[in-house]
Amino acid sequence: MSGPEAANGDIVTAGLVVIGDEILSGRTKDRNIGYIAEHLTNIGIDLREVRVVPDVEDEIVAALNALRARYDHVFTTGGIGPTHDDITADAVARAFGVSIDLDPRAVAMLKSRIPESRLNEARLRMARIPAGASLIENAASAAPGFSIGNVHVMAGVPAIMQAMLDALTPKLRKGRRMLARTVFADMGEGAIAKGLAEVQARFPDVAIGSYPKQVDGRFATDLVIRARDEARLAEAASAVEDLVARTAASGAS
Amino acid sequence: MSGPEAANGDIVTAGLVVIGDEILSGRTKDRNIGYIAEHLTNIGIDLREVRVVPDVEDEIVAALNALRARYDHVFTTGGIGPTHDDITADAVARAFGVSIDLDPRAVAMLKSRIPESRLNEARLRMARIPAGASLIENAASAAPGFSIGNVHVMAGVPAIMQAMLDALTPKLRKGRRMLARTVFADMGEGAIAKGLAEVQARFPDVAIGSYPKQVDGRFATDLVIRARDEARLAEAASAVEDLVARTAASGAS
Repeated sequence: MSGPEAANGDIVTAGLVVIGDEILSGRTKDRNIGYIAEHLTNIGIDLREVRVVPDVEDEIVAALNALRARYDHVFTTGGIGPTHDDITADAVARAFGVSIDLDPRAVAMLKSRIPESRLNEARLRMARIPAGASLIENAASAAPGFSIGNVHVMAGVPAIMQAMLDALTPKLRKGRRMLARTVFADMGEGAIAKGLAEVQARFPDVAIGSYPKQVDGRFATDLVIRARDEARLAEAASAVEDLVARTAASGAS
Repeated sequence: MSGPEAANGDIVTAGLVVIGDEILSGRTKDRNIGYIAEHLTNIGIDLREVRVVPDVEDEIVAALNALRARYDHVFTTGGIGPTHDDITADAVARAFGVSIDLDPRAVAMLKSRIPESRLNEARLRMARIPAGASLIENAASAAPGFSIGNVHVMAGVPAIMQAMLDALTPKLRKGRRMLARTVFADMGEGAIAKGLAEVQARFPDVAIGSYPKQVDGRFATDLVIRARDEARLAEAASAVEDLVARTAASGAS
């Protein structure tokens, strides 16, 4: 495990590489980033960075190498199907400097679910796995993902990605969960900004975020308090609640 | 304008930096990436890379400097509100090595739409603009975004971001549009992968992408053909259509 914070067992970090021209062209609207972000938060892994890159091997390799040196885990989505534009496995092999070939375990998985008449050369390509990787099975499809070093390679189709993430989750090193509490403020965030900065200054070990939203056409605010320590979270949330009540009583909006 | 392809007037590129802890924690599901990707494609700008970074100044500065050196345009979303966690404008000023202060034009915009009783110190912070920037007005809210060099700084709230992008669009340098055509194949992508690679090899100047999807519980495929030249696009699309028809006739699935 790498990353400057790896020595601190409380914090386990991750980066995510989303691979695919279709996301960058806007044709496909990504649904994996939000799902993975929420899942990792829930299991005690902090997602620190996401990169969306095109189906270009040099770009994939560069993103992988940048993120795997920085974070405890790197997840990827996309580019592991049977067509010519599916180049993720080759890019991962190149990033790690290992060979890639048909993996007998992966071939067996394909054979167990795809009738021989349909298991053509292209579909067999999905069993090409970098040397030294372990496979990620999934309940949704025949072709596996794989983990090599701290990089976990998953499908791009959301249902398949989710099944792979489920299979992967028990095997991942996790840290102490970041806990969150949301305090709603029925006012614009500008009304509460000064007091909020003061609360943040009193709780430097707690992260306080302010998120404007529109309710019935006017602005309101979600204040999100995050900490790993339950007691500190409660203390900070209570300070934010007091602030909201005082600000509302003052008539500010 | 920078970037290796800037010499080619046909191609104008962009990067996008999405700023915000709430995206990385999964609390907020980003809706801006897909919107911006589609909009840029439609106006003749190729989105080449997206990075999602936390509300940490060093991270924002690093992402800005990496992308503004590589692409013709860099867009950012998020972090320009009135609260302590809104640090994008400061990060942009630091990335460009310029000062940042209250901008009289931005102050005037705020005053024209926010009653004086509500225009407190925190809300005035939204008029802090890096020196040398031009403002991006928007029809949705009082506070402007801004452009400096090739970086365009927008709000994170989708409705406001969209209004800023509309205001910005006429001012952006654009290239020749990437055109796309989609051919539907009622079969798994593995059935067509070999023939598709052959078509791709015949049309190296055309990008052919294969996107599996589920229709009535079984896999089907969208084949997306992209090129800037209308005639080449039509030729390649027709070759793909022929392939799909031949494959369907052969009974492969």
